[in-house]
Amino acid sequence: MFNTLEKEESAQKSGKRTVFIVSDATAITAETLAHSVLTQFTDLQYDQVRIPFIDSPEKAILAAQKINDAYIKTGVRPLVFSTFVDVNIHKTFTEKCQGFRIEFFRSFIKEIEQETGLKSAHSMGRSHVIKDEERYNRRIEAINYTLAHDDGQMNKGLNEADVILVGVSRSGKTPTSLFLAMQFGVKAANYPLIPEDFERGELPEVLHDKRDKLFGLSISPERLSQIRNERRPGSRYASLDNCRQEIEAAENMMRREGIKWLNSTSRSIEEISATIMAELNLHNAHKIE
Amino acid sequence: MFNTLEKEESAQKSGKRTVFIVSDATAITAETLAHSVLTQFTDLQYDQVRIPFIDSPEKAILAAQKINDAYIKTGVRPLVFSTFVDVNIHKTFTEKCQGFRIEFFRSFIKEIEQETGLKSAHSMGRSHVIKDEERYNRRIEAINYTLAHDDGQMNKGLNEADVILVGVSRSGKTPTSLFLAMQFGVKAANYPLIPEDFERGELPEVLHDKRDKLFGLSISPERLSQIRNERRPGSRYASLDNCRQEIEAAENMMRREGIKWLNSTSRSIEEISATIMAELNLHNAHKIE
Repeated sequence: MFNTLEKEESAQKSGKRTVFIVSDATAITAETLAHSVLTQFTDLQYDQVRIPFIDSPEKAILAAQKINDAYIKTGVRPLVFSTFVDVNIHKTFTEKCQGFRIEFFRSFIKEIEQETGLKSAHSMGRSHVIKDEERYNRRIEAINYTLAHDDGQMNKGLNEADVILVGVSRSGKTPTSLFLAMQFGVKAANYPLIPEDFERGELPEVLHDKRDKLFGLSISPERLSQIRNERRPGSRYASLDNCRQEIEAAENMMRREGIKWLNSTSRSIEEISATIMAELNLHNAHKIE
Repeated sequence: MFNTLEKEESAQKSGKRTVFIVSDATAITAETLAHSVLTQFTDLQYDQVRIPFIDSPEKAILAAQKINDAYIKTGVRPLVFSTFVDVNIHKTFTEKCQGFRIEFFRSFIKEIEQETGLKSAHSMGRSHVIKDEERYNRRIEAINYTLAHDDGQMNKGLNEADVILVGVSRSGKTPTSLFLAMQFGVKAANYPLIPEDFERGELPEVLHDKRDKLFGLSISPERLSQIRNERRPGSRYASLDNCRQEIEAAENMMRREGIKWLNSTSRSIEEISATIMAELNLHNAHKIE
Protein backbone atom coordinates (compact mmCIF):
# COMPACT_ATOMS: atom_id res chain seq x y z
CA MET A 1 0.00 0.00 0.00
CA PHE A 2 2.76 2.35 0.96
CA ASN A 3 4.63 1.42 -2.19
CA THR A 4 1.66 2.19 -4.41
CA LEU A 5 1.22 5.58 -2.88
CA GLU A 6 4.89 6.31 -3.26
CA LYS A 7 4.76 5.21 -6.89
CA GLU A 8 1.78 7.41 -7.58
CA GLU A 9 3.47 10.32 -5.98
CA SER A 10 6.60 9.78 -7.99
CA ALA A 11 4.61 9.56 -11.24
CA GLN A 12 2.91 12.82 -10.33
CA LYS A 13 6.22 14.48 -9.70
CA SER A 14 8.13 13.29 -12.74
CA GLY A 15 5.67 11.92 -15.31
CA LYS A 16 4.63 13.67 -18.50
CA ARG A 17 1.63 15.85 -17.85
CA THR A 18 -1.27 16.60 -20.10
CA VAL A 19 -2.06 20.30 -20.06
CA PHE A 20 -5.62 21.23 -20.96
CA ILE A 21 -6.62 24.73 -21.99
CA VAL A 22 -10.37 25.15 -21.56
CA SER A 23 -12.57 28.16 -22.17
CA ASP A 24 -16.13 29.20 -22.88
CA ALA A 25 -14.69 31.34 -25.68
CA THR A 26 -11.68 30.99 -27.98
CA ALA A 27 -9.24 29.78 -25.28
CA ILE A 28 -6.61 32.09 -26.78
CA THR A 29 -6.18 34.20 -23.65
CA ALA A 30 -5.97 31.08 -21.50
CA GLU A 31 -3.38 29.58 -23.81
CA THR A 32 -1.26 32.71 -23.85
CA LEU A 33 -1.13 32.96 -20.08
CA ALA A 34 -0.72 29.21 -19.56
CA HIS A 35 2.19 29.24 -21.95
CA SER A 36 3.80 32.16 -20.13
CA VAL A 37 3.42 30.44 -16.78
CA LEU A 38 4.61 27.05 -18.04
CA THR A 39 7.77 28.40 -19.67
CA GLN A 40 8.89 29.09 -16.10
CA PHE A 41 9.01 25.33 -15.60
CA THR A 42 11.86 24.25 -17.79
CA ASP A 43 11.81 20.69 -16.45
CA LEU A 44 8.12 20.12 -17.09
CA GLN A 45 7.35 17.73 -19.94
CA TYR A 46 3.83 18.04 -21.25
CA ASP A 47 1.40 17.51 -24.10
CA GLN A 48 -1.12 20.26 -24.68
CA VAL A 49 -4.79 19.98 -25.62
CA ARG A 50 -7.00 22.99 -26.35
CA ILE A 51 -10.75 22.79 -25.77
CA PRO A 52 -12.43 26.07 -26.78
CA PHE A 53 -16.09 27.15 -26.93
CA ILE A 54 -17.34 25.24 -23.87
CA ASP A 55 -20.50 27.32 -23.82
CA SER A 56 -23.02 25.03 -22.10
CA PRO A 57 -23.07 22.89 -18.92
CA GLU A 58 -23.37 19.80 -21.16
CA LYS A 59 -20.17 20.64 -22.99
CA ALA A 60 -18.52 21.40 -19.65
CA ILE A 61 -19.32 17.86 -18.50
CA LEU A 62 -17.89 16.36 -21.70
CA ALA A 63 -14.72 18.46 -21.40
CA ALA A 64 -14.31 17.38 -17.78
CA GLN A 65 -14.72 13.75 -18.81
CA LYS A 66 -12.01 14.11 -21.43
CA ILE A 67 -9.69 15.46 -18.75
CA ASN A 68 -10.61 12.73 -16.28
CA ASP A 69 -9.96 10.10 -18.97
CA ALA A 70 -6.48 11.52 -19.49
CA TYR A 71 -5.89 11.29 -15.74
CA ILE A 72 -6.84 7.59 -15.75
CA LYS A 73 -4.85 6.87 -18.90
CA THR A 74 -1.63 8.61 -17.87
CA GLY A 75 -1.87 8.11 -14.13
CA VAL A 76 -0.74 11.73 -13.72
CA ARG A 77 -3.10 14.50 -12.75
CA PRO A 78 -3.58 16.82 -15.75
CA LEU A 79 -2.97 20.54 -15.38
CA VAL A 80 -6.05 22.49 -16.43
CA PHE A 81 -5.94 26.19 -17.27
CA SER A 82 -9.27 27.83 -17.87
CA THR A 83 -10.98 31.13 -18.53
CA PHE A 84 -14.69 30.91 -17.82
CA VAL A 85 -16.81 34.01 -17.96
CA ASP A 86 -20.08 32.19 -17.36
CA VAL A 87 -20.50 31.42 -13.67
CA ASN A 88 -22.76 28.39 -14.08
CA ILE A 89 -20.69 26.65 -16.72
CA HIS A 90 -17.63 27.23 -14.57
CA LYS A 91 -19.41 25.71 -11.58
CA THR A 92 -20.42 22.58 -13.50
CA PHE A 93 -16.92 22.20 -14.89
CA THR A 94 -15.34 22.60 -11.46
CA GLU A 95 -17.60 19.96 -9.94
CA LYS A 96 -16.79 17.35 -12.57
CA CYS A 97 -13.15 17.98 -13.44
CA GLN A 98 -10.56 16.00 -11.50
CA GLY A 99 -7.54 17.75 -13.00
CA PHE A 100 -5.45 20.34 -11.15
CA ARG A 101 -7.36 23.49 -12.07
CA ILE A 102 -6.14 27.03 -12.42
CA GLU A 103 -8.83 29.52 -13.39
CA PHE A 104 -7.48 32.80 -14.75
CA PHE A 105 -10.62 34.85 -14.81
CA ARG A 106 -13.08 34.47 -12.02
CA SER A 107 -11.12 35.68 -9.00
CA PHE A 108 -9.89 38.79 -10.81
CA ILE A 109 -13.36 39.75 -11.94
CA LYS A 110 -14.62 39.58 -8.37
CA GLU A 111 -11.74 41.74 -7.11
CA ILE A 112 -12.37 44.37 -9.77
CA GLU A 113 -16.09 44.40 -9.04
CA GLN A 114 -15.25 45.21 -5.43
CA GLU A 115 -12.70 47.88 -6.30
CA THR A 116 -14.78 49.68 -8.90
CA GLY A 117 -18.24 49.11 -7.50
CA LEU A 118 -19.26 48.03 -11.02
CA LYS A 119 -20.97 44.81 -12.00
CA SER A 120 -19.36 42.67 -14.65
CA ALA A 121 -21.31 41.39 -17.64
CA HIS A 122 -21.53 37.66 -17.19
CA SER A 123 -21.91 37.15 -20.87
CA MET A 124 -19.77 34.63 -22.62
CA GLY A 125 -16.69 35.14 -24.64
CA ARG A 126 -16.94 38.87 -24.65
CA SER A 127 -13.21 39.34 -24.97
CA HIS A 128 -12.90 38.11 -28.53
CA VAL A 129 -16.35 38.97 -29.68
CA ILE A 130 -16.15 42.19 -31.58
CA LYS A 131 -17.17 44.38 -28.71
CA ASP A 132 -14.70 47.16 -28.97
CA GLU A 133 -15.44 47.62 -32.64
CA GLU A 134 -13.26 50.66 -33.09
CA ARG A 135 -10.21 48.90 -31.71
CA TYR A 136 -10.94 45.82 -33.79
CA ASN A 137 -11.37 47.78 -36.99
CA ARG A 138 -8.12 49.59 -36.29
CA ARG A 139 -6.34 46.24 -36.09
CA ILE A 140 -7.83 44.96 -39.34
CA GLU A 141 -7.05 48.25 -41.06
CA ALA A 142 -3.48 48.08 -39.73
CA ILE A 143 -3.05 44.53 -41.08
CA ASN A 144 -4.22 45.61 -44.52
CA TYR A 145 -1.98 48.69 -44.38
CA THR A 146 1.03 46.63 -43.36
CA LEU A 147 0.49 44.08 -46.12
CA ALA A 148 0.21 46.86 -48.70
CA HIS A 149 3.38 48.55 -47.40
CA ASP A 150 5.52 45.46 -46.93
CA ASP A 151 9.06 45.54 -48.30
CA GLY A 152 8.79 49.03 -49.75
CA GLN A 153 6.23 47.92 -52.31
CA MET A 154 4.10 51.06 -52.07
CA ASN A 155 5.30 54.59 -51.35
CA LYS A 156 1.80 55.99 -51.51
CA GLY A 157 0.38 56.39 -48.02
CA LEU A 158 3.76 56.00 -46.31
CA ASN A 159 2.98 59.22 -44.44
CA GLU A 160 0.18 57.43 -42.63
CA ALA A 161 2.56 54.90 -41.08
CA ASP A 162 2.96 54.85 -37.29
CA VAL A 163 6.37 53.28 -37.80
CA ILE A 164 8.53 52.35 -40.79
CA LEU A 165 10.95 49.51 -40.13
CA VAL A 166 14.20 49.60 -42.05
CA GLY A 167 16.98 47.03 -42.37
CA VAL A 168 18.72 44.71 -44.80
CA SER A 169 16.77 42.00 -46.60
CA ARG A 170 15.65 39.19 -44.22
CA SER A 171 16.45 41.03 -40.99
CA GLY A 172 12.99 40.33 -39.59
CA LYS A 173 11.06 43.37 -40.80
CA THR A 174 8.01 41.59 -42.24
CA PRO A 175 7.00 39.34 -39.30
CA THR A 176 7.64 42.21 -36.89
CA SER A 177 5.49 44.60 -38.94
CA LEU A 178 2.65 42.07 -39.04
CA PHE A 179 2.85 41.44 -35.32
CA LEU A 180 2.76 45.19 -34.60
CA ALA A 181 -0.34 45.51 -36.77
CA MET A 182 -2.13 42.47 -35.43
CA GLN A 183 -1.35 42.88 -31.72
CA PHE A 184 -1.30 46.64 -31.35
CA GLY A 185 -3.20 47.98 -34.35
CA VAL A 186 -0.09 49.85 -35.42
CA LYS A 187 0.31 50.79 -39.07
CA ALA A 188 3.77 49.37 -39.61
CA ALA A 189 5.35 49.79 -43.03
CA ASN A 190 8.76 48.36 -43.80
CA TYR A 191 11.42 49.38 -46.26
CA PRO A 192 14.53 47.44 -47.23
CA LEU A 193 18.02 48.92 -47.14
CA ILE A 194 19.81 47.59 -50.22
CA PRO A 195 23.40 47.70 -51.54
CA GLU A 196 22.53 50.66 -53.81
CA ASP A 197 21.57 52.69 -50.74
CA PHE A 198 24.93 51.90 -49.11
CA GLU A 199 26.87 52.80 -52.25
CA ARG A 200 25.05 56.10 -52.45
CA GLY A 201 25.58 56.48 -48.70
CA GLU A 202 22.05 57.76 -48.26
CA LEU A 203 18.69 56.56 -47.02
CA PRO A 204 16.17 55.82 -49.78
CA GLU A 205 14.86 59.24 -50.82
CA VAL A 206 11.24 58.54 -49.90
CA LEU A 207 12.32 58.12 -46.27
CA HIS A 208 14.20 61.43 -45.97
CA ASP A 209 11.30 63.37 -44.47
CA LYS A 210 10.12 60.45 -42.32
CA ARG A 211 13.12 60.02 -40.02
CA ASP A 212 11.05 60.28 -36.83
CA LYS A 213 9.04 57.23 -37.87
CA LEU A 214 11.98 55.02 -38.74
CA PHE A 215 13.13 52.15 -36.60
CA GLY A 216 15.98 49.87 -37.65
CA LEU A 217 16.42 46.11 -37.32
CA SER A 218 19.84 44.58 -37.47
CA ILE A 219 20.88 40.94 -37.09
CA SER A 220 24.07 38.94 -36.69
CA PRO A 221 25.85 38.11 -39.99
CA GLU A 222 25.88 34.39 -39.13
CA ARG A 223 22.12 34.25 -38.56
CA LEU A 224 21.39 36.36 -41.64
CA SER A 225 23.53 34.12 -43.82
CA GLN A 226 21.72 31.07 -42.46
CA ILE A 227 18.28 32.58 -43.20
CA ARG A 228 19.27 33.73 -46.69
CA ASN A 229 20.78 30.34 -47.48
CA GLU A 230 17.41 28.72 -46.86
CA ARG A 231 16.00 30.86 -49.65
CA ARG A 232 18.92 31.00 -52.05
CA PRO A 233 21.44 28.33 -51.12
CA GLY A 234 25.04 29.07 -52.02
CA SER A 235 24.31 32.51 -53.51
CA ARG A 236 26.54 35.53 -53.13
CA TYR A 237 23.48 37.22 -51.53
CA ALA A 238 23.54 34.58 -48.77
CA SER A 239 27.30 34.40 -48.27
CA LEU A 240 28.61 35.26 -44.83
CA ASP A 241 31.00 37.77 -46.32
CA ASN A 242 28.26 39.67 -48.14
CA CYS A 243 25.95 39.54 -45.11
CA ARG A 244 28.72 40.98 -42.94
CA GLN A 245 29.30 43.86 -45.37
CA GLU A 246 25.61 44.72 -45.76
CA ILE A 247 25.01 44.67 -42.02
CA GLU A 248 28.04 46.84 -41.28
CA ALA A 249 26.93 49.34 -43.91
CA ALA A 250 23.36 49.35 -42.62
CA GLU A 251 24.40 49.84 -38.99
CA ASN A 252 26.74 52.67 -39.99
CA MET A 253 23.94 54.32 -41.90
CA MET A 254 21.51 54.02 -38.99
CA ARG A 255 24.05 55.47 -36.57
CA ARG A 256 24.87 58.33 -38.92
CA GLU A 257 21.21 59.14 -39.52
CA GLY A 258 20.32 58.94 -35.82
CA ILE A 259 17.85 56.10 -36.34
CA LYS A 260 17.01 54.00 -33.28
CA TRP A 261 17.63 50.34 -33.93
CA LEU A 262 18.07 47.00 -32.25
CA ASN A 263 19.62 43.65 -33.01
CA SER A 264 16.85 41.11 -33.69
CA THR A 265 19.06 38.00 -33.59
CA SER A 266 18.00 36.43 -30.32
CA ARG A 267 14.80 38.37 -29.80
CA SER A 268 11.27 37.19 -30.50
CA ILE A 269 8.88 39.28 -32.58
CA GLU A 270 7.00 39.97 -29.32
CA GLU A 271 10.11 41.43 -27.71
CA ILE A 272 11.11 43.43 -30.77
CA SER A 273 7.59 44.81 -31.11
CA ALA A 274 7.21 45.74 -27.45
CA THR A 275 10.59 47.49 -27.59
CA ILE A 276 9.58 49.49 -30.66
CA MET A 277 6.28 50.48 -29.04
CA ALA A 278 8.13 51.79 -25.98
CA GLU A 279 11.02 53.44 -27.87
CA LEU A 280 8.69 55.34 -30.18
CA ASN A 281 6.10 55.90 -27.45
CA LEU A 282 3.32 54.45 -29.58
CA HIS A 283 -0.21 54.00 -28.23
CA ASN A 284 0.64 54.90 -24.66
CA ALA A 285 3.58 52.58 -24.31
CA HIS A 286 6.07 54.10 -21.91
CA LYS A 287 9.77 53.54 -21.73
CA ILE A 288 11.34 53.70 -18.31
CA GLU A 289 15.11 54.02 -18.52
CA MET B 1 -14.39 65.27 6.61
CA PHE B 2 -17.25 62.91 5.99
CA ASN B 3 -18.09 64.78 2.82
CA THR B 4 -14.54 64.50 1.55
CA LEU B 5 -14.50 60.79 2.13
CA GLU B 6 -17.81 60.40 0.41
CA LYS B 7 -16.58 62.44 -2.52
CA GLU B 8 -13.45 60.39 -2.81
CA GLU B 9 -15.46 57.23 -2.73
CA SER B 10 -17.81 58.48 -5.39
CA ALA B 11 -14.90 59.49 -7.61
CA GLN B 12 -13.47 56.02 -7.14
CA LYS B 13 -16.73 54.45 -8.16
CA SER B 14 -17.55 56.52 -11.18
CA GLY B 15 -14.42 58.36 -12.37
CA LYS B 16 -12.30 57.47 -15.37
CA ARG B 17 -9.61 55.07 -14.32
CA THR B 18 -6.09 54.82 -15.57
CA VAL B 19 -5.18 51.21 -16.26
CA PHE B 20 -1.48 50.38 -16.10
CA ILE B 21 -0.04 47.25 -17.63
CA VAL B 22 3.35 46.54 -16.08
CA SER B 23 5.78 43.70 -16.70
CA ASP B 24 9.41 42.73 -16.41
CA ALA B 25 9.12 41.48 -20.00
CA THR B 26 7.04 42.58 -22.99
CA ALA B 27 3.78 43.13 -21.06
CA ILE B 28 1.93 41.47 -23.92
CA THR B 29 0.56 38.62 -21.82
CA ALA B 30 -0.52 41.04 -19.10
CA GLU B 31 -2.23 43.24 -21.67
CA THR B 32 -4.06 40.34 -23.27
CA LEU B 33 -5.45 39.09 -19.99
CA ALA B 34 -6.19 42.58 -18.65
CA HIS B 35 -8.11 43.34 -21.80
CA SER B 36 -10.10 40.11 -21.49
CA VAL B 37 -10.95 40.85 -17.89
CA LEU B 38 -11.82 44.51 -18.51
CA THR B 39 -14.16 43.80 -21.42
CA GLN B 40 -16.38 42.23 -18.76
CA PHE B 41 -16.86 45.72 -17.34
CA THR B 42 -18.85 47.47 -20.00
CA ASP B 43 -19.42 50.53 -17.83
CA LEU B 44 -15.77 51.07 -16.99
CA GLN B 45 -14.19 54.08 -18.66
CA TYR B 46 -10.42 53.97 -18.74
CA ASP B 47 -7.18 55.13 -20.30
CA GLN B 48 -4.50 52.52 -20.72
CA VAL B 49 -0.74 52.88 -20.25
CA ARG B 50 1.73 50.07 -20.99
CA ILE B 51 5.03 49.92 -19.12
CA PRO B 52 7.11 46.96 -20.34
CA PHE B 53 10.65 45.78 -19.52
CA ILE B 54 10.71 46.74 -15.82
CA ASP B 55 13.75 44.57 -15.28
CA SER B 56 15.43 46.18 -12.24
CA PRO B 57 14.30 47.40 -8.81
CA GLU B 58 15.22 50.95 -9.89
CA LYS B 59 12.86 50.78 -12.85
CA ALA B 60 10.19 49.24 -10.60
CA ILE B 61 10.39 52.29 -8.34
CA LEU B 62 10.07 54.67 -11.32
CA ALA B 63 7.10 52.72 -12.68
CA ALA B 64 5.41 52.81 -9.26
CA GLN B 65 5.98 56.58 -9.07
CA LYS B 66 4.35 57.04 -12.46
CA ILE B 67 1.32 55.15 -11.19
CA ASN B 68 1.22 57.07 -7.91
CA ASP B 69 1.40 60.34 -9.87
CA ALA B 70 -1.65 59.28 -11.89
CA TYR B 71 -3.46 58.53 -8.65
CA ILE B 72 -2.74 62.03 -7.36
CA LYS B 73 -3.58 63.69 -10.67
CA THR B 74 -6.89 61.88 -11.32
CA GLY B 75 -7.96 61.33 -7.72
CA VAL B 76 -8.99 57.81 -8.68
CA ARG B 77 -6.96 54.78 -7.76
CA PRO B 78 -5.38 53.33 -10.93
CA LEU B 79 -5.90 49.67 -11.79
CA VAL B 80 -2.56 47.94 -12.21
CA PHE B 81 -2.21 44.60 -14.02
CA SER B 82 1.20 43.03 -13.84
CA THR B 83 3.19 39.95 -14.75
CA PHE B 84 6.41 39.79 -12.79
CA VAL B 85 8.59 36.74 -13.04
CA ASP B 86 11.37 38.16 -10.89
CA VAL B 87 10.47 37.91 -7.21
CA ASN B 88 12.61 40.82 -6.01
CA ILE B 89 11.49 43.29 -8.62
CA HIS B 90 7.90 42.32 -7.88
CA LYS B 91 8.49 42.89 -4.17
CA THR B 92 9.94 46.36 -4.73
CA PHE B 93 7.11 47.27 -7.07
CA THR B 94 4.48 46.06 -4.61
CA GLU B 95 5.96 48.07 -1.75
CA LYS B 96 5.98 51.32 -3.70
CA CYS B 97 2.88 51.13 -5.90
CA GLN B 98 -0.30 52.65 -4.50
CA GLY B 99 -2.55 51.49 -7.34
CA PHE B 100 -5.03 48.62 -7.07
CA ARG B 101 -2.77 45.75 -8.10
CA ILE B 102 -3.63 42.50 -9.80
CA GLU B 103 -0.66 40.23 -10.41
CA PHE B 104 -1.31 37.51 -13.00
CA PHE B 105 1.77 35.38 -12.51
CA ARG B 106 3.12 34.89 -9.06
CA SER B 107 0.28 33.04 -7.33
CA PHE B 108 -0.09 30.56 -10.21
CA ILE B 109 3.60 29.79 -10.30
CA LYS B 110 3.56 28.92 -6.61
CA GLU B 111 0.53 26.64 -7.04
CA ILE B 112 2.16 24.80 -9.93
CA GLU B 113 5.40 24.40 -8.01
CA GLN B 114 3.43 22.69 -5.27
CA GLU B 115 1.45 20.47 -7.63
CA THR B 116 4.39 19.34 -9.76
CA GLY B 117 7.13 19.34 -7.16
CA LEU B 118 9.22 21.29 -9.68
CA LYS B 119 11.02 24.56 -9.13
CA SER B 120 10.31 27.43 -11.49
CA ALA B 121 13.07 29.36 -13.19
CA HIS B 122 12.96 32.82 -11.70
CA SER B 123 14.54 34.26 -14.76
CA MET B 124 13.01 37.24 -16.36
CA GLY B 125 10.82 37.44 -19.38
CA ARG B 126 11.24 33.83 -20.30
CA SER B 127 7.85 33.68 -21.97
CA HIS B 128 8.69 35.79 -24.97
CA VAL B 129 12.35 35.09 -25.05
CA ILE B 130 12.97 32.50 -27.71
CA LYS B 131 13.06 29.57 -25.35
CA ASP B 132 10.96 27.11 -27.19
CA GLU B 133 12.93 27.61 -30.37
CA GLU B 134 11.19 24.91 -32.34
CA ARG B 135 7.77 26.37 -31.65
CA TYR B 136 9.03 29.88 -32.46
CA ASN B 137 10.62 28.82 -35.72
CA ARG B 138 7.42 27.06 -36.69
CA ARG B 139 5.51 30.31 -36.21
CA ILE B 140 7.95 32.35 -38.30
CA GLU B 141 7.96 29.67 -41.00
CA ALA B 142 4.15 29.66 -40.96
CA ILE B 143 4.03 33.45 -41.38
CA ASN B 144 6.35 33.26 -44.36
CA TYR B 145 4.36 30.38 -45.82
CA THR B 146 1.08 32.23 -45.38
CA LEU B 147 2.41 35.39 -47.00
CA ALA B 148 3.68 33.38 -49.98
CA HIS B 149 0.35 31.56 -50.33
CA ASP B 150 -1.97 34.50 -49.81
CA ASP B 151 -4.83 34.96 -52.27
CA GLY B 152 -3.90 31.96 -54.42
CA GLN B 153 -0.67 33.59 -55.57
CA MET B 154 1.38 30.39 -55.46
CA ASN B 155 0.17 26.86 -56.16
CA LYS B 156 3.58 25.37 -55.48
CA GLY B 157 3.75 24.01 -51.96
CA LEU B 158 -0.02 24.11 -51.47
CA ASN B 159 0.22 20.48 -50.35
CA GLU B 160 2.16 21.58 -47.28
CA ALA B 161 -0.73 23.74 -46.02
CA ASP B 162 -2.39 22.79 -42.74
CA VAL B 163 -5.48 24.60 -43.94
CA ILE B 164 -6.55 26.38 -47.13
CA LEU B 165 -9.18 29.05 -46.60
CA VAL B 166 -11.58 29.62 -49.47
CA GLY B 167 -14.20 32.30 -50.03
CA VAL B 168 -15.12 35.26 -52.20
CA SER B 169 -12.81 38.26 -52.44
CA ARG B 170 -12.70 40.27 -49.16
CA SER B 171 -14.48 37.70 -47.00
CA GLY B 172 -11.74 37.83 -44.36
CA LYS B 173 -9.35 35.14 -45.62
CA THR B 174 -6.09 37.11 -45.40
CA PRO B 175 -6.27 38.45 -41.81
CA THR B 176 -7.53 35.06 -40.61
CA SER B 177 -4.70 33.22 -42.35
CA LEU B 178 -2.13 35.54 -40.82
CA PHE B 179 -3.61 35.18 -37.35
CA LEU B 180 -3.59 31.37 -37.67
CA ALA B 181 0.07 31.49 -38.67
CA MET B 182 1.16 33.98 -36.03
CA GLN B 183 -0.81 32.64 -33.07
CA PHE B 184 -0.81 28.92 -33.76
CA GLY B 185 2.07 28.33 -36.18
CA VAL B 186 -0.41 26.96 -38.69
CA LYS B 187 0.51 27.06 -42.37
CA ALA B 188 -2.63 28.73 -43.65
CA ALA B 189 -2.93 29.30 -47.38
CA ASN B 190 -5.94 31.03 -48.86
CA TYR B 191 -7.54 30.82 -52.26
CA PRO B 192 -10.22 33.09 -53.68
CA LEU B 193 -13.46 31.80 -55.18
CA ILE B 194 -14.16 33.96 -58.22
CA PRO B 195 -17.07 34.37 -60.66
CA GLU B 196 -15.33 32.08 -63.19
CA ASP B 197 -15.40 29.26 -60.64
CA PHE B 198 -19.11 29.77 -60.08
CA GLU B 199 -19.84 29.81 -63.83
CA ARG B 200 -17.90 26.60 -64.29
CA GLY B 201 -19.67 25.25 -61.20
CA GLU B 202 -16.45 23.75 -59.90
CA LEU B 203 -13.77 24.42 -57.34
CA PRO B 204 -10.49 25.75 -58.77
CA GLU B 205 -8.73 22.69 -60.15
CA VAL B 206 -5.68 22.95 -57.90
CA LEU B 207 -7.96 22.44 -54.89
CA HIS B 208 -9.65 19.25 -56.13
CA ASP B 209 -7.35 16.86 -54.30
CA LYS B 210 -7.12 19.05 -51.19
CA ARG B 211 -10.74 18.99 -50.02
CA ASP B 212 -9.88 17.80 -46.51
CA LYS B 213 -7.78 20.93 -45.95
CA LEU B 214 -10.35 23.41 -47.17
CA PHE B 215 -12.31 25.66 -44.87
CA GLY B 216 -14.72 28.28 -46.17
CA LEU B 217 -15.44 31.82 -45.04
CA SER B 218 -18.69 33.49 -45.93
CA ILE B 219 -19.98 36.92 -44.97
CA SER B 220 -23.21 38.90 -45.18
CA PRO B 221 -23.79 40.64 -48.54
CA GLU B 222 -24.31 44.00 -46.78
CA ARG B 223 -20.99 43.83 -44.96
CA LEU B 224 -19.14 42.58 -48.05
CA SER B 225 -20.52 45.39 -50.15
CA GLN B 226 -19.45 47.89 -47.50
CA ILE B 227 -15.88 46.50 -47.39
CA ARG B 228 -15.56 46.35 -51.16
CA ASN B 229 -16.88 49.88 -51.51
CA GLU B 230 -14.01 51.14 -49.37
CA ARG B 231 -11.62 49.75 -51.98
CA ARG B 232 -13.55 50.38 -55.17
CA PRO B 233 -16.36 52.82 -54.48
CA GLY B 234 -19.39 52.51 -56.72
CA SER B 235 -18.03 49.57 -58.72
CA ARG B 236 -20.12 46.64 -59.93
CA TYR B 237 -17.70 44.46 -57.89
CA ALA B 238 -18.81 46.27 -54.73
CA SER B 239 -22.54 46.48 -55.50
CA LEU B 240 -24.89 44.80 -53.06
CA ASP B 241 -26.50 42.88 -55.89
CA ASN B 242 -23.22 41.41 -57.11
CA CYS B 243 -22.08 40.64 -53.55
CA ARG B 244 -25.34 38.79 -52.92
CA GLN B 245 -24.92 36.69 -56.08
CA GLU B 246 -21.28 35.82 -55.39
CA ILE B 247 -22.00 34.82 -51.81
CA GLU B 248 -24.97 32.68 -52.76
CA ALA B 249 -22.91 30.91 -55.42
CA ALA B 250 -19.99 30.40 -53.02
CA GLU B 251 -22.19 29.01 -50.24
CA ASN B 252 -23.90 26.67 -52.69
CA MET B 253 -20.53 25.45 -53.90
CA MET B 254 -19.25 24.86 -50.36
CA ARG B 255 -22.40 22.94 -49.44
CA ARG B 256 -22.22 20.83 -52.59
CA GLU B 257 -18.54 20.06 -52.10
CA GLY B 258 -18.98 19.22 -48.42
CA ILE B 259 -16.62 22.00 -47.28
CA LYS B 260 -16.99 23.17 -43.69
CA TRP B 261 -17.53 26.90 -43.51
CA LEU B 262 -18.68 29.69 -41.25
CA ASN B 263 -20.03 33.18 -41.58
CA SER B 264 -17.34 35.69 -40.58
CA THR B 265 -19.60 38.76 -40.42
CA SER B 266 -19.78 39.35 -36.68
CA ARG B 267 -16.85 37.20 -35.63
CA SER B 268 -13.37 38.37 -34.76
CA ILE B 269 -10.31 36.80 -36.38
CA GLU B 270 -9.62 35.17 -32.99
CA GLU B 271 -13.01 33.48 -32.97
CA ILE B 272 -12.82 32.42 -36.60
CA SER B 273 -9.32 31.02 -36.09
CA ALA B 274 -10.18 29.14 -32.90
CA THR B 275 -13.21 27.65 -34.63
CA ILE B 276 -11.12 26.49 -37.60
CA MET B 277 -8.51 24.94 -35.28
CA ALA B 278 -11.23 22.97 -33.49
CA GLU B 279 -13.21 22.00 -36.61
CA LEU B 280 -10.15 20.67 -38.42
CA ASN B 281 -8.62 19.29 -35.23
CA LEU B 282 -5.36 21.14 -35.81
CA HIS B 283 -2.50 21.06 -33.28
CA ASN B 284 -4.50 19.27 -30.61
CA ALA B 285 -7.50 21.54 -30.65
CA HIS B 286 -10.58 19.54 -29.75
CA LYS B 287 -14.14 20.22 -30.71
CA ILE B 288 -16.77 19.23 -28.18
CA GLU B 289 -20.23 19.13 -29.74
